[in-house]
Amino acid sequence: MSTRLKVVQFGIGPIGQSCLRTVLSKNKSIELVGAIDIDPEKVGKDVSEILGLEQKTGVIVGSDARAVLENARPDVVVHTTSSFLASMYDQLLLCAEYGANVVSSTEELSYPFDRHPEISVRLDEAAKKHGVTLLGTGVNPGYAMDALALMATGVCNEVTSIEVNREVNASLRRLPLQLKIGAGLSVEAFEEKKATGQFGHIGLVESVKLIADGLNWPIERLNETLDCVISPKKVVTPFLTVEEGQVAGIHHYAKAFIGDTCVISLDLKMFVGAEDPRDAVLVQGDPPVDLVVRGGIFGDTATVATLINGIPSVAAGPAGLATVASLPIPRAFGTKWSK
Amino acid sequence: MSTRLKVVQFGIGPIGQSCLRTVLSKNKSIELVGAIDIDPEKVGKDVSEILGLEQKTGVIVGSDARAVLENARPDVVVHTTSSFLASMYDQLLLCAEYGANVVSSTEELSYPFDRHPEISVRLDEAAKKHGVTLLGTGVNPGYAMDALALMATGVCNEVTSIEVNREVNASLRRLPLQLKIGAGLSVEAFEEKKATGQFGHIGLVESVKLIADGLNWPIERLNETLDCVISPKKVVTPFLTVEEGQVAGIHHYAKAFIGDTCVISLDLKMFVGAEDPRDAVLVQGDPPVDLVVRGGIFGDTATVATLINGIPSVAAGPAGLATVASLPIPRAFGTKWSK
Repeated sequence: MSTRLKVVQFGIGPIGQSCLRTVLSKNKSIELVGAIDIDPEKVGKDVSEILGLEQKTGVIVGSDARAVLENARPDVVVHTTSSFLASMYDQLLLCAEYGANVVSSTEELSYPFDRHPEISVRLDEAAKKHGVTLLGTGVNPGYAMDALALMATGVCNEVTSIEVNREVNASLRRLPLQLKIGAGLSVEAFEEKKATGQFGHIGLVESVKLIADGLNWPIERLNETLDCVISPKKVVTPFLTVEEGQVAGIHHYAKAFIGDTCVISLDLKMFVGAEDPRDAVLVQGDPPVDLVVRGGIFGDTATVATLINGIPSVAAGPAGLATVASLPIPRAFGTKWSK
Repeated sequence: MSTRLKVVQFGIGPIGQSCLRTVLSKNKSIELVGAIDIDPEKVGKDVSEILGLEQKTGVIVGSDARAVLENARPDVVVHTTSSFLASMYDQLLLCAEYGANVVSSTEELSYPFDRHPEISVRLDEAAKKHGVTLLGTGVNPGYAMDALALMATGVCNEVTSIEVNREVNASLRRLPLQLKIGAGLSVEAFEEKKATGQFGHIGLVESVKLIADGLNWPIERLNETLDCVISPKKVVTPFLTVEEGQVAGIHHYAKAFIGDTCVISLDLKMFVGAEDPRDAVLVQGDPPVDLVVRGGIFGDTATVATLINGIPSVAAGPAGLATVASLPIPRAFGTKWSK
């Protein structure tokens, strides 16, 4: 690549910081030109200080998104501020206004058309007006339970149903995630917290919609269910201990129907002590396809990868609000051997 | 889909006939409007007669491609006439001239830029001039050993090497394929026939190039090797018997290097008696990805599927010479549930 793509990082939470590290590591292909966050602890500091790097980057965190974009004029914004669209889509409109393509971790942006039809129209119009591509992606939603499933159907003449099973061993993940899935709670405490809407994966419905839209399937009914996984044994992680009979994590699943037939089943289990982590796609059809990523796709690292790998994709993409299903096959970018 | 895409079948050999059956079965989404072949046994007959169908299709096989295209004005041509580009790229130019997008089984078209740079330029220019998309695809090349490998890297921050292993149990395939891989020959007879260039899979180098280009990897050296697989036991298929010590099939592999590092290894085994048929992609990187299609992707059926599933993709694609890596994720088309 002769000229490096200029990148602004919008949102410097844990994922945003990992994105920053990755962007800096790929400086042969991309150039960090700005960083945005509203946290007073971060504003005004060189990015290196936040990341604990010795060498200054020369990029100072700004809280005024407009000013940063005006000054930096990025090709692409890597956006990691929120899971939800309603509270922050103005950030995306602002990026579009400055001619910046966006790859965002916002789960609701992975398939926004049904949940937020009006916002989707506004985003699409703004993107087209300014000639930029807006994309929501990640490992899940964005890959493991949707794009990979669509890909699996690519060799099928007929598809009658799709079943995706993602099992994540949360023992290997960081403490906030273990707490987020309720590990170590009693079943009663889990149910109480669940009633407040604090548990569960965001984006399962979006994944269903991505698959259904990709196959042009008119889903008639969609059930989404959240249960806890009860630990059959004592599990000790680096951070906490789960006793037998306590909650080990979540079991979150969605089933989509046409008539009485369950045509799409997405099943996500994230719990400590999971012994068979995997991402499995089973396509019933002609021919059937039984695809599995053994050991599963490691969430934290891979989420950052899907975002950074989306940079050249949105930079080259057609103007408008895109999805992982409307852009070319995702692939690694700026690797060790890349020109 | 409100209007059906109009399709012409160009080439009515075994794969072309399967394509015709599939096109006719998806008549909710696509409409067969023409068929081209030069075989005097087929010319002038209704397609139904060639396929052994009771009901007439109203589509008569024509030998004059220009006349068929002129009359039928298809949106998409499904092209299955040859593995090689040099002898037939004028067929593709003709399709472009009539404003028809093309999805072709021509192995060399899956990544034509290195082997046929001048033809590639001519095809790309013609496609752009007439606003059509030209694509070469299939299961292999086009999916199992290239597109799927690229897809697997989509969740990686770093990729240091890619290894693809495709093992096909030829016992389940038709007789011509079993003969094509030398099943039942002595090793000497295999070596003699191999020297005449009659064995081997077409497209392995194209798959390497698709991956390398997708990752922007500057391959410095590429070794391609064809061996026979010797049967360790007696194998009886519905068509023939292979004795212990006879040839069971082919082992065809390619290794691509940057410096002294083998960065891409594609390994294809097609033989009778294969006990672990599979399509496996192993990505070394961060994170590593260990993806496998258990039981493998069934070649004959899936090849037709990749072509037919390419119809809406080329119809909507950007003008020019495309590859599976430049178009959106392949997916099933016109299935039972599709609108």
